[in-house]
Amino acid sequence: MHKGNAIKGEYMRYHKVPDETVKRLPLYLRYLQSIARDGRNNVKSSEFADSLGINPPQVRKDLSFFGGFGTPGVGYNVKKLLHQLRNILKLKKTNKTALVGAGDLGSVFFDYSGFSQLGFEIVAAFDKDPIKIGTVKNGVTVEDISKLKTLKRRGVRLAIVAVPAGAAQETVDRLVEAGVVGILNLAPSYISVPKKIRVISIDIALDLARLPYYLPLASGK
Amino acid sequence: MHKGNAIKGEYMRYHKVPDETVKRLPLYLRYLQSIARDGRNNVKSSEFADSLGINPPQVRKDLSFFGGFGTPGVGYNVKKLLHQLRNILKLKKTNKTALVGAGDLGSVFFDYSGFSQLGFEIVAAFDKDPIKIGTVKNGVTVEDISKLKTLKRRGVRLAIVAVPAGAAQETVDRLVEAGVVGILNLAPSYISVPKKIRVISIDIALDLARLPYYLPLASGK
Repeated sequence: MHKGNAIKGEYMRYHKVPDETVKRLPLYLRYLQSIARDGRNNVKSSEFADSLGINPPQVRKDLSFFGGFGTPGVGYNVKKLLHQLRNILKLKKTNKTALVGAGDLGSVFFDYSGFSQLGFEIVAAFDKDPIKIGTVKNGVTVEDISKLKTLKRRGVRLAIVAVPAGAAQETVDRLVEAGVVGILNLAPSYISVPKKIRVISIDIALDLARLPYYLPLASGK
Repeated sequence: MHKGNAIKGEYMRYHKVPDETVKRLPLYLRYLQSIARDGRNNVKSSEFADSLGINPPQVRKDLSFFGGFGTPGVGYNVKKLLHQLRNILKLKKTNKTALVGAGDLGSVFFDYSGFSQLGFEIVAAFDKDPIKIGTVKNGVTVEDISKLKTLKRRGVRLAIVAVPAGAAQETVDRLVEAGVVGILNLAPSYISVPKKIRVISIDIALDLARLPYYLPLASGK
């Protein structure tokens, strides 16, 4: 069991993984994918550390949470660790994802290699702009926002929200009603959701806005 | 002094503000901007709380760090607090920003209202794709990446990196050489920089990738 190959038996332990570790797991996964493409069989924690800017003890601790222990001097088996990470992150099967808001930012994601690489596929898109409705992007037809409610029967439980700030809460309410339980929110707005719904928000302008604070004063002035 | 109007005298205290508070300050700023547009003169901490999903004591604590104390029953003076927040965040003047990578994602930012609202202006853009070089977007001509070194004399000290993962480190090295000290990194890649350089990274695919972990198992399977 502590050798990390009893994946089923260890399933229950997944729930004890701290959020900070969960944050890093996709990083490890993506790195493993890249070295697997290079044909590598084993990887040491120091390599993760160098490539990802995380210290080796942290890497070992993170991976130990779900029974992934490396062999001293050899490291981790790449294939096995990939399998375990996909398993714990529920990325083994394609994750069907809806996109709401097909404007400049939203449209980036119709064909975003970062998503497909990790097993996400945009299978539905919605907008309220009549000019956008009916257009086809990367094989996906933009639908009227009123069709959001069809997501439940289409088995889509994840959504990316890329609407203007003022439309974010209403959009999210509709998504929750349509059975969506995980939301990546790119709208520059706080949204409130029922407890069982998971939201991860990215606010690009706010992240940029805290950069100047840390800058040294300009030398020329 | 503790009334929050001795702005100059309190400047030195800014350096004690915790990172977690700095993260929330642009949120307060943006909210204040919106209520200032509505013609409001005062605002209570409970209003921040309701609109931003932050509890009132946290709001009061955050704002107290730089001498912003509200008046009981009345709240904070909107204009004064706006001034103080812009001051502490160094957002009083336009922050000239360079964009590296004029692909799908990068191009979103040529005309991104979230940036202009907070005083950021894209004044230069670079790419290595000959097809993109020379094109003009929102008044900005995309230049050859070899022109990055001109940023120093142009007084640009902030940059947004939206290049593919494999080009990120090289791009950042060039930016640092060109005198850029603050970087918003949107490339899905870890980058290392000298200590004096501040990097904030946004990795959209990784954020999406940790959503399924938190999802309940599908009821229908």
